[in-house]
Amino acid sequence: MLFERVAIIGVGLIGGSFALGLKQAKACAHVVGAGRNPGNLKLALQRGAIDSIAPDPAAAARGADLVLLATPVSHYPKILSSMSLHPKAIVTDAGSTKRDVVAAARSALKEKIAQFVPGHPIAGAEKSGAAAATPDLFKGRRVILTPLRENAAAAVKKVEQAWESCGARITRMTAEEHDSVLAAVSHLPHVLAFALVHDIAARANAAQLFSYAAGGFRDFTRIASSHPEMWRDICIANRDRLLEEIDRYSKNLGSIRKIIESADAAALEKLFRDARAARQRWLDGEFEA
Amino acid sequence: MLFERVAIIGVGLIGGSFALGLKQAKACAHVVGAGRNPGNLKLALQRGAIDSIAPDPAAAARGADLVLLATPVSHYPKILSSMSLHPKAIVTDAGSTKRDVVAAARSALKEKIAQFVPGHPIAGAEKSGAAAATPDLFKGRRVILTPLRENAAAAVKKVEQAWESCGARITRMTAEEHDSVLAAVSHLPHVLAFALVHDIAARANAAQLFSYAAGGFRDFTRIASSHPEMWRDICIANRDRLLEEIDRYSKNLGSIRKIIESADAAALEKLFRDARAARQRWLDGEFEA
Repeated sequence: MLFERVAIIGVGLIGGSFALGLKQAKACAHVVGAGRNPGNLKLALQRGAIDSIAPDPAAAARGADLVLLATPVSHYPKILSSMSLHPKAIVTDAGSTKRDVVAAARSALKEKIAQFVPGHPIAGAEKSGAAAATPDLFKGRRVILTPLRENAAAAVKKVEQAWESCGARITRMTAEEHDSVLAAVSHLPHVLAFALVHDIAARANAAQLFSYAAGGFRDFTRIASSHPEMWRDICIANRDRLLEEIDRYSKNLGSIRKIIESADAAALEKLFRDARAARQRWLDGEFEA
Repeated sequence: MLFERVAIIGVGLIGGSFALGLKQAKACAHVVGAGRNPGNLKLALQRGAIDSIAPDPAAAARGADLVLLATPVSHYPKILSSMSLHPKAIVTDAGSTKRDVVAAARSALKEKIAQFVPGHPIAGAEKSGAAAATPDLFKGRRVILTPLRENAAAAVKKVEQAWESCGARITRMTAEEHDSVLAAVSHLPHVLAFALVHDIAARANAAQLFSYAAGGFRDFTRIASSHPEMWRDICIANRDRLLEEIDRYSKNLGSIRKIIESADAAALEKLFRDARAARQRWLDGEFEA
């Protein structure tokens, strides 16, 4: 048994799936959940994701040897400050940005910061809530850990084992590197998709335009249905890196604009061909470590 | 029986599906196919999309009462010039741009231009070839016709009936309007997706970045796997409208950049919320005519 008592703060898609994954792997004896939505917690209990409900995060964390924060990142300071962690407890999280999380954890946990191992499971979140949780959510998915210099090797290892028992593949990098990588492949595309839908919706002929939008538009804009508050927090927390990405993308789009304007068929076809080939290599798994 | 003899020039996903749809509806007696790829034509014959293979487009069109051009638009001038249409034959097409198609048809068909009814089925094309053709491809999908002032009402009606027998919903608009609408909801997103993949692929750490790209990235960039030559032709043929869209989008992205830079959480959340709500209304079918 990897853990005696695991506390999940925020038993939604991510927290609930983590709990179900641990249970399926028989990696923990008891899971206690806390959260703001009593109905959701009850559902998590019914679905077997958690074994008991705690009245608040501090109560859930009491006596836990592993605590997972799976709430919006903006709630971390209050949650972390409220906890009295026993010295062997490990806290980890599932937040989409890491530099701000580390700063918040340092500020809230102070001399207990060594007990916090930051993490980020790269798993889709178009659905939400305990209702959508599944033990297989992390199977084959990546989890990025961004360990702190204060972390004991054994603590990082424990968090790694927890995610591995859910079927995830673990990578370690710095919080800085994490935020750069995710700005490029996740945060930027989200902003681009939100921007397109917002632009179309704001037009006088929006209804006509939407009525001719087809499957390509639907897939391109799927991430524009992502959670507004969560993405607001991500964009603002990681804004320096995201702004760099937006600027880089804008410049690149400007170059493509010039190629189209000059009707340079050969250059345009090469660019499209290169992009398609790169995407195909990615789909073929060529970039998987 | 709507048609005695239908000629399909280019029996790929679109041409083959149109043929299969007509046949399933028993709307035509005989379908003849022509194309550049003998193996693909043979497969179309085996799959029952066509009943015979013609050696070239002119031979296929001979005696046909309906001809569908479903090749890349850049091939239209040569194909149309080669045909000796009998006076009752109707020619239509499936090209993604319409102003350039109309100009090419006028130039090639001259005094027979009244026989050409331009069209564009809005159907996804991530797969291609006769192997991917299906009689249901156009079920519930939109087909835009952009009739010419020279077209007889009966000729437009016949083309409309052909697509309707495939289960499509028909709308009429001008070629100008078509090209504006499609620039916004199709051509622009394609360029944006190609631009993102191209940008990521060109970086020194491309392999690392791709290795952390997940489901959101996959869907956002799906249209960057579209056919390079076809999209080269579309972007260049419709470049005036596309450039307007790129400029409008860039300006809009610049505004969002400012909101992120100033960390204006309320404005950012409102923008994301509005976009998500608009997309949901679209998914709910609120903009369907």
